[in-house]
Amino acid sequence: MYDLVVIGSGVTGFGAAMYAARLDLSVAVIGDVDGGTITLTDDVANYPGFIQLTGKELADNLKAHALDYPVTIETGLVEDIFRDDQDFFYVITSNKTFLAKSVLFATGMKERELEVPGHDELRNKGVSYCALCDAPLFKDKTVAVVGGSDSAAKEALLLAKFCPKVYMIYRRKKIRPEPINGRRIENEPRIEIITETNVTEILGDSRVEGVKLDNPHNGSDTLELDAVFIAIGGIPFSDLAKKLGIETNEKGEIIIDRSSRTNVDGVFAAGDVVDTEFKQAITGVAEGVHAAYQAYNYVNEKEFAFICEENV
Amino acid sequence: MYDLVVIGSGVTGFGAAMYAARLDLSVAVIGDVDGGTITLTDDVANYPGFIQLTGKELADNLKAHALDYPVTIETGLVEDIFRDDQDFFYVITSNKTFLAKSVLFATGMKERELEVPGHDELRNKGVSYCALCDAPLFKDKTVAVVGGSDSAAKEALLLAKFCPKVYMIYRRKKIRPEPINGRRIENEPRIEIITETNVTEILGDSRVEGVKLDNPHNGSDTLELDAVFIAIGGIPFSDLAKKLGIETNEKGEIIIDRSSRTNVDGVFAAGDVVDTEFKQAITGVAEGVHAAYQAYNYVNEKEFAFICEENV
Repeated sequence: MYDLVVIGSGVTGFGAAMYAARLDLSVAVIGDVDGGTITLTDDVANYPGFIQLTGKELADNLKAHALDYPVTIETGLVEDIFRDDQDFFYVITSNKTFLAKSVLFATGMKERELEVPGHDELRNKGVSYCALCDAPLFKDKTVAVVGGSDSAAKEALLLAKFCPKVYMIYRRKKIRPEPINGRRIENEPRIEIITETNVTEILGDSRVEGVKLDNPHNGSDTLELDAVFIAIGGIPFSDLAKKLGIETNEKGEIIIDRSSRTNVDGVFAAGDVVDTEFKQAITGVAEGVHAAYQAYNYVNEKEFAFICEENV
Repeated sequence: MYDLVVIGSGVTGFGAAMYAARLDLSVAVIGDVDGGTITLTDDVANYPGFIQLTGKELADNLKAHALDYPVTIETGLVEDIFRDDQDFFYVITSNKTFLAKSVLFATGMKERELEVPGHDELRNKGVSYCALCDAPLFKDKTVAVVGGSDSAAKEALLLAKFCPKVYMIYRRKKIRPEPINGRRIENEPRIEIITETNVTEILGDSRVEGVKLDNPHNGSDTLELDAVFIAIGGIPFSDLAKKLGIETNEKGEIIIDRSSRTNVDGVFAAGDVVDTEFKQAITGVAEGVHAAYQAYNYVNEKEFAFICEENV
């Protein structure tokens, strides 16, 4: 029986576990990818306190911090979860069941990947999924955003602060940003929109050098670039949460309040799986820490209730 | 003219400034205490990623991170602030005026200090203002909380997780926690309440060894202790913000939303000065980072509006 089971072993989960243990909660972290998606990133320069380190190093720091306390870390994938009529949670992996008084979903999300040749080889070598993280690395360079959503538009607008030339490459006839961002793009001469065009290959040897297009642009089916930012949507890992009746938004993200509480008592969520537009390591970790504190409050008030019943 | 002026040079302000500069905002930080109140703490073990460091070291890391970008840091106290009819802010110190498109209040708060002999000498040597930060340091020790509010009660309850004996020392006849915490205290045999009593001196040589009381307890006017946690209230630095019409709660804390926005467009707040019960370095920094992102959105939308007017 754990006071708190954290589902997800990314930086958010580790930060939450460390704090929960400091609050004297018994806590287990269950995850299949040790360190989470940030470990795919070579260059993290935006976690305040560390000027520059790799995603793996940041995750290792957070994990070591958690393990400085009595935290159980279990490698595995949670396959099922339910709640019994005494409000205990059963968190089930392929070979174990964890009994928990409270649960934190720090399950993260998966970017929808651009499945073209060159993508995997050049990922983090000019192929990026986060302008907010990586834009400063490409100052004064030529870049492209693949995608036409409002998120893609905002990536392009941010990149235009740093880069003299930003292409937006979109498969449909018209990009579909929110009106305000559409107007900002119209007023931004650094952004050029290429519609009805797909990227069919990412070109480059050790770094991105360009992309191949299925619809020639200015007479050429290749475009020279220093970086490609992919913004074709993400998939939050919230299916398990939905099984517990947790409310999600239209993107499938778990809805939380300022204290990382979901609509279900005893269930908290934090990090990339939640309904914030602004998904950064530092904010995910802080949400996790907030959740740990709320779990502490929840577990103690519940325990008090049990004692009360015994006394009556 | 700055895109963002951050008032307060604690970890929250530095984290915000770093992020703002990454978003290509021109940013200045103005503060009178370099590093803020965390620099008073010898032992910080709860900023995820750093297992243990001093408050000064943490603040220095955040400051160095900010200075890795083109951030202006100004030593000074902001004496006045107002907004003109074009929505520009004037942030005024004793010898300079900063013009700003947006403002972040990261002004922090001041704990009400217990003004008795021994306090200053033994601060951080057993005298603490944060059970959440320091409780684990006093595992299996005898401690006291000075104060009788709901916050003081929660400090005592948290300490009782770690310590076999926790006194609550309060000057009035009856402590005044919220009912749920009052019942939890009644059910916690580790907590003993001493009312109608003031601490008149904190005793100890290099560490806290006890306190002197003005009303003898069990026939003695001294109480042997390993630590004293002081919880007699705090004073948020929000007077300047109130001048701009920023809403505060009954404690004087600035009210923000999940994105660190106040009720006034272009004004953000983060850290110890805001209306969260849970004031920690990590959450303050994340609020600051969130504010930087919202300032970026605000400034860019505003600039677009100016361009529009010129075009019309």
